[in-house]
Amino acid sequence: MKKLKECTVSVFGLGLLGASLAWKLTSGGSVQGVAGWSRTRETVQRALDTGIITHACDSAEECAALGDILILAVPIRSMEETSLSIAGAVRQDALAVFDLASTKTEVGRSLSSIWGPRYAGFHPMAGKEKGGIGNADPELFLGSICAIVPFPGTSPSVLTLAEELASALGGRSLRTDPAEHDAVTACISHFPVLVAASLSLLAGKEREIHPLLPLLAAGGFRDTTRVAGGPAWLGADMASTNGVQVRRLAEEFKNVLDELLSASPEDLEILLAKASECRESILAAKEAWRKEERQ
Amino acid sequence: MKKLKECTVSVFGLGLLGASLAWKLTSGGSVQGVAGWSRTRETVQRALDTGIITHACDSAEECAALGDILILAVPIRSMEETSLSIAGAVRQDALAVFDLASTKTEVGRSLSSIWGPRYAGFHPMAGKEKGGIGNADPELFLGSICAIVPFPGTSPSVLTLAEELASALGGRSLRTDPAEHDAVTACISHFPVLVAASLSLLAGKEREIHPLLPLLAAGGFRDTTRVAGGPAWLGADMASTNGVQVRRLAEEFKNVLDELLSASPEDLEILLAKASECRESILAAKEAWRKEERQ
Repeated sequence: MKKLKECTVSVFGLGLLGASLAWKLTSGGSVQGVAGWSRTRETVQRALDTGIITHACDSAEECAALGDILILAVPIRSMEETSLSIAGAVRQDALAVFDLASTKTEVGRSLSSIWGPRYAGFHPMAGKEKGGIGNADPELFLGSICAIVPFPGTSPSVLTLAEELASALGGRSLRTDPAEHDAVTACISHFPVLVAASLSLLAGKEREIHPLLPLLAAGGFRDTTRVAGGPAWLGADMASTNGVQVRRLAEEFKNVLDELLSASPEDLEILLAKASECRESILAAKEAWRKEERQ
Repeated sequence: MKKLKECTVSVFGLGLLGASLAWKLTSGGSVQGVAGWSRTRETVQRALDTGIITHACDSAEECAALGDILILAVPIRSMEETSLSIAGAVRQDALAVFDLASTKTEVGRSLSSIWGPRYAGFHPMAGKEKGGIGNADPELFLGSICAIVPFPGTSPSVLTLAEELASALGGRSLRTDPAEHDAVTACISHFPVLVAASLSLLAGKEREIHPLLPLLAAGGFRDTTRVAGGPAWLGADMASTNGVQVRRLAEEFKNVLDELLSASPEDLEILLAKASECRESILAAKEAWRKEERQ
């Protein structure tokens, strides 16, 4: 079986994630070449002109025919459609198909049935507030976790390639199953987007009554709502393709919030101290794992 | 009437806010001197040794007797008690009493009845994740808003002094009434603390089921929950002395969240785009006002 270095990688979708990934592989010389396709012709040309990709493709089919490894970096809700449109053009000897979607259960079930043993989920846990090729950065994934999500039937060699890919991006591999992946990302990413958006909408309403609201808003408001500043299509994709987990967590969240709201000042202080400890402990566990990996 | 430059300022409480304020006044030479008192004798000594204050006081009464201007920087729930304990020691010709509490309606009503026309609320909108004199910074208030909150009967000369004080701190004055102050700060600060704490507690619970949760947590979780990392006593003080507004906003928030949770993917995208606009517009309005002030 070919090593990553001997492979041509075909990237479908050249937004923030697709372009950053392509750029890192091209500039790092870790693959034979990177073919790229996007719905927008200008984006493909821009990617070629700036050295993000080595082959510009006019069609998804052309891109599919070039690749040893196929990486689907289109919006989550287009993953299945894109897969179906290129399935006939993919080479018989293509080795692997990965998707970069932020949710895995629904999309993975569908992609697994299309691609069989060559498919595994691949989710680099990195991003920026603003998307698009204009914000692409070959070092976007440096030090970040790449969740590798096998499905029943995924070939072991595909998982090995996924791990090589994570290394080539400067990231760290972590295997997880789709259900666990979606439960955890709902908790630390997808549901917080809805919370941040709700706080932003609430502040927008309150501002109508109190026009001086923006003047009193400081760092706390900016940080708590930061993830509401991301692309709306992405937030909607994440919440709707991970709806079961997001709604489960929303119910739990409301119970926790109600407990805080009804607590006495003394009990509230205890609960807030516990919340701070939970947060510190989570951030510290991540940092410890990072240091361990570096050694 | 004395100008700020001719006044001795007495600061009660030398935590993050009290010590930072004292330090700026001392180092900026904008007042005659700064007397300081804290419950903890070592804190007072440390403040004197590091040049944060010019006079160390053994008792709150001693500190009160020195001041032309009194600044209450104790925890919100100790404001009334501290005021009552020093009321008899304050000079007849003392000019003004300000409190730095983050909530104004409840505490202001009580302080106004103790101090009469010499009292106004003063709330510099600045802070740090970690409190205490060890984190004090004379430039903490640079460019921040200082809400000045008159009560019925507050003397106009007291408000003028409050504005001079805001300038001396490097901040910008904004007059508001207590009800508006508390409604707005509940929305952009106090309620978001409870939200961030609820998300942290929720993540703590989920981690028990999914031990790899910390490894997948990235910048989004860290930022959304940042304000949950502040001192628990402060969060409890803010939420409990601004309970009416916090509970009102919690109900509105849950309605907004439910609307997002039940929306179709298409409607959710529209709502998330609106949320992002609300946020951008609030941050832009603040930035525009800042630039205007600088001119």
